[in-house]
Amino acid sequence: MISISEERYRQAEISEMHLKDNFWKKYEDLVRETVLPYQWRILNDQEPDAAPSHAVRNFRIAAGVEEGEFYGEVFQDSDLAKWIEAASYILADHEDAELGALIEKAVDIIEEAQQENGYLDTYFTSGRQDMEWTDLYECHEMYCMGHMMEAAAAYYEATGKRRFLDIMCRCADHIGECFGPEEGKRKGYPGHQEIELALVKLYKATGQEKYLELSRFFLKERGSEPNYFVNEWATSRNKREFKTGSLTGMPDLRYNQSHCTVAEQKMAVGHAVRAMYMYSAMADVARETGDTELLSACRTLWDDVTKRQMYITGAVGSTHQGEAFTFDYDLPNETAYAETCASVGLILFAARMQQMDMDSRYSDVIEKVLYNTILSSMSEDGKHYFYVNPQEMWPEASKNNPDRRHVITERRKWFGCACCPPNIARLLASLQKYICSTDGETLFIHLYISSEIHVKGTAGEYSADMSCFSPWSGKMEMQVENVPGNIGKIALRIPGWCDKWMVYVNDVKQEPEIKKGYLYLNAVRRGDRIRFETDVPVRLMQADPRVRADAGKTAVQMGPFVYCFEETDNGRNLSALRIDISSSLKKTAEYGLPGGIPAVVLRGWKTEEWQDSTELYRPYECREKEVSLTAVPYYIWGNRQPGEMLIWVRT
Amino acid sequence: MISISEERYRQAEISEMHLKDNFWKKYEDLVRETVLPYQWRILNDQEPDAAPSHAVRNFRIAAGVEEGEFYGEVFQDSDLAKWIEAASYILADHEDAELGALIEKAVDIIEEAQQENGYLDTYFTSGRQDMEWTDLYECHEMYCMGHMMEAAAAYYEATGKRRFLDIMCRCADHIGECFGPEEGKRKGYPGHQEIELALVKLYKATGQEKYLELSRFFLKERGSEPNYFVNEWATSRNKREFKTGSLTGMPDLRYNQSHCTVAEQKMAVGHAVRAMYMYSAMADVARETGDTELLSACRTLWDDVTKRQMYITGAVGSTHQGEAFTFDYDLPNETAYAETCASVGLILFAARMQQMDMDSRYSDVIEKVLYNTILSSMSEDGKHYFYVNPQEMWPEASKNNPDRRHVITERRKWFGCACCPPNIARLLASLQKYICSTDGETLFIHLYISSEIHVKGTAGEYSADMSCFSPWSGKMEMQVENVPGNIGKIALRIPGWCDKWMVYVNDVKQEPEIKKGYLYLNAVRRGDRIRFETDVPVRLMQADPRVRADAGKTAVQMGPFVYCFEETDNGRNLSALRIDISSSLKKTAEYGLPGGIPAVVLRGWKTEEWQDSTELYRPYECREKEVSLTAVPYYIWGNRQPGEMLIWVRT
Repeated sequence: MISISEERYRQAEISEMHLKDNFWKKYEDLVRETVLPYQWRILNDQEPDAAPSHAVRNFRIAAGVEEGEFYGEVFQDSDLAKWIEAASYILADHEDAELGALIEKAVDIIEEAQQENGYLDTYFTSGRQDMEWTDLYECHEMYCMGHMMEAAAAYYEATGKRRFLDIMCRCADHIGECFGPEEGKRKGYPGHQEIELALVKLYKATGQEKYLELSRFFLKERGSEPNYFVNEWATSRNKREFKTGSLTGMPDLRYNQSHCTVAEQKMAVGHAVRAMYMYSAMADVARETGDTELLSACRTLWDDVTKRQMYITGAVGSTHQGEAFTFDYDLPNETAYAETCASVGLILFAARMQQMDMDSRYSDVIEKVLYNTILSSMSEDGKHYFYVNPQEMWPEASKNNPDRRHVITERRKWFGCACCPPNIARLLASLQKYICSTDGETLFIHLYISSEIHVKGTAGEYSADMSCFSPWSGKMEMQVENVPGNIGKIALRIPGWCDKWMVYVNDVKQEPEIKKGYLYLNAVRRGDRIRFETDVPVRLMQADPRVRADAGKTAVQMGPFVYCFEETDNGRNLSALRIDISSSLKKTAEYGLPGGIPAVVLRGWKTEEWQDSTELYRPYECREKEVSLTAVPYYIWGNRQPGEMLIWVRT
Repeated sequence: MISISEERYRQAEISEMHLKDNFWKKYEDLVRETVLPYQWRILNDQEPDAAPSHAVRNFRIAAGVEEGEFYGEVFQDSDLAKWIEAASYILADHEDAELGALIEKAVDIIEEAQQENGYLDTYFTSGRQDMEWTDLYECHEMYCMGHMMEAAAAYYEATGKRRFLDIMCRCADHIGECFGPEEGKRKGYPGHQEIELALVKLYKATGQEKYLELSRFFLKERGSEPNYFVNEWATSRNKREFKTGSLTGMPDLRYNQSHCTVAEQKMAVGHAVRAMYMYSAMADVARETGDTELLSACRTLWDDVTKRQMYITGAVGSTHQGEAFTFDYDLPNETAYAETCASVGLILFAARMQQMDMDSRYSDVIEKVLYNTILSSMSEDGKHYFYVNPQEMWPEASKNNPDRRHVITERRKWFGCACCPPNIARLLASLQKYICSTDGETLFIHLYISSEIHVKGTAGEYSADMSCFSPWSGKMEMQVENVPGNIGKIALRIPGWCDKWMVYVNDVKQEPEIKKGYLYLNAVRRGDRIRFETDVPVRLMQADPRVRADAGKTAVQMGPFVYCFEETDNGRNLSALRIDISSSLKKTAEYGLPGGIPAVVLRGWKTEEWQDSTELYRPYECREKEVSLTAVPYYIWGNRQPGEMLIWVRT
């Protein structure tokens, strides 16, 4: 029997946290000082040499204040929405009048573009009004509106300003008039899930249960018989402008997870971003309504994703065809899709699961995704991005083998389909949310990221100053400034990657209770100094033998960081390398990597080139020379020289 | 300086050879008794449960003797042509009145379908006459006509009957009126090369040089500036019915090897079958006209294909996208395309190169392709075929990962695009052609396939009875019945895979001259008994280290046979297997494989499944159990049980 009612946790809000981490502050600053201004210029088509966006102009055209045609993807609106959401998170923790003015300017034009009935989607509003809601399968209307709702909720939380929230409530009310269980309303649901989780945010921001109910309706209706998309395909096909989503000429129901009801889903299939957003919404609704059927499905899907379909970097999506999951243990490295947005989605899903079940495995995954896929997807300068996150790179193959063409060799300034860059921005700008949470009584520390904590509990505030030297130091010190009442409870996550840990309160070693990967300090007093230390082992990892792509191979990992081998350190043809598994793994902080993170040096062999033969095949003979191999954290790969990259190396 | 004038060889004709080989006779009989009748029923839509063909009916419709619409691929005509060609080869060595009557029946309907001006293509003749020659890029007209010419030449050579040859000469004459260097004629060339080599056959059958000239025109014009296909794309786009050949919305010139002139081509690119047919025609024209520029390009391309882009099975084509070559050393096993027709084409190319350069490497490749890809592409019952020849098989991935969907798990009865099955039939039916050749003076033995040889030389006939116990015996005995004049010359190919050989004439050991892989016996007399013995080593092979897909792996080979590991012998998850490279490789003829070919048993290890963890990744620990591994010849894989298959196994 699954029960959730007794366990409810909430993430810390951004306003309750202040980041002061050596490692992460850089990224927050980058988002604030570089990424947001850069992306704003992109959205306004002011950045030369980048793929055009047209996103702001689309709103101006829809509002009738500028002449022109809609341009871009049908979901172009969402790029602006995600930018506003990211900017709002920054505003929540920083005074920034200029940024605030930009958002207000954006909201102005959004308000003008909104139809009288509340409808808001510039693609349709620019002369395609008769086609509204006729192609839910592919036209992303609710996806765009959902992102706008998320942005509006974030802006409201950051500033208390209601205007944008009201705009999006009008939009949500209009949707509620068009869709729902009542007679005469459409029984449809979005082709790209997103609004389901956005409606929960709207519900939380406004307290209006109708938004939660609408979200639940979309989730419950999805995949029920008769299938809405099958009907839509048959009946409104002539109006359809976008018929390309399906390879078969029929709607691909697995692609958008409508092949059965959401509660019946046992394996992650189809478009990975859609899946992640949907699972997140399922978890939201399960938590808010106590729906154990939804929760049970969430748990099954969580296990499938993280125990059978996730790359070691935390990336998901094994194929570019449909940007999708494939099946259990199918994790090819060369052809991985591993979309940035799917990684963002996996963090969203994990954080929601954690709000129902205080188990360290959720933050283990969040940490893995953050320190690997998320950071890797943006260049060190904040202006170049990966959409597909290579799990292995052979630049010539990306150029010459069409099966690997999607695996681009270098981060790009922008994309025609630009969902990923602003998604990274909003994730990094809201990093504070993932550091701790509370059930009102206990303060749970998930991520060891230096910050000032002021989290409200039931009986008062937890106030503490957490200092962590670096993510690879294994050292955290927390000065407790306030606890609710006389005695507070603080629980510390034991990272899944550590072997040993010690915890001290005022230099007295503790032997606290451990529950689901958390250390429970149950008698914390004002003024206590908590010290938590772990080893940060450098390790050779292996994959479950059912992951055929990694058979006979190993990956280097240090704490949460997955390492990789780059051509710039190890020469050409990384597939010729083999690791000596008995080699000592030497951390070398002097390697000069950005941020001072150590490289790892280890011993191995490299197959020698054939000097004496031009044949392609010949009798087996092991000719290797001993070499010293250098591994660097995956997240910084491709920031020095373009070239080959390999995570899994032969043993 | 390349010279070809002094070295000209011709393949033996089918009428000069009579097959009596234990191993191969079975396949010849299979083609005659099973494959041809079966495919005839298919072509006439009389075979239930197979993909419909409609090929014969298309001719009847074009001839106006049946009502209906053209059905099938635009190159459906070629299926019937290849069937006639195959049947003609059978007729050349067998009395078979019934088969002869079927061919005559087919020729009747072809004759009726031919237009008055000689044009022959049922797709266009069935109501699309106004579109003739408007879409050379994709419409395969000359491809179909070329196959018909090959069939007509084969039928004429087998029977001496001219009717079909005359039909196709009228067709070729019509093409010559439409295309050519003269003013007013089109400067185009086929989108799918084929007719170039067919015209050389027509030239040889008729002695009419205009056909050789037309072939040369097509080859020389191809890829010259301004590019014909670029113009065609721009000017006749509205008439185009087939716009799907290009991924970019523009003609993909590399796809059909028209990106530069044929003489300028240095690397095999694009659609592999087109490439192979074109290279074959280039070699033909080089040989017939002494064109050293073409020959030089052929040699460069030969080296590229066989030394940098060929699978160990002799298969070519690394990607399903465009059924194409990719680039040097890119030979992924899981996603290989390796089309059957491309393997047939590689044999055609090799045989032509050998007609200008008596070097054993050409028949080394022919033998490799024959004993592996060709045989594997058809089931033991002759009624099921591979179009894509898997170089590795994980059935669940073929089902659930769209990147591997083209790698079908079991041979099929027929295909909507059915180029491959009749191509296999015509190759197997003409196997005799590849066994020996002559320059008029010396008889060259290429393949050790038991046969009665009656090959005309300049001064008389070579007549001999060659007996080979089995392809894995390494034993050949030849009773020489006649040589031209008093003393003849016989050259024996030393297979590239053997280490040791011995040759005896009348039991006297010989130390003959060796040139480019051939043993030259320069004083052979009538009544001599030649005995040639080689070792047939079982070996572990490796690929050039630049073939990343095979890094750290080995493949088992015995003589020309590449071996593979099947699930039915070795259990599930073949990727968990590792070979002990010091293991003895034990041939076991008692394994009960079809034809008595031995299996190979060797020692290795299998990674143990994780009993104690449900995590996907964990610290490296080598847990293997010793196992005995069984490899079987690649050509018989999938004939016992469906399941996994692996050629390259970890060491």
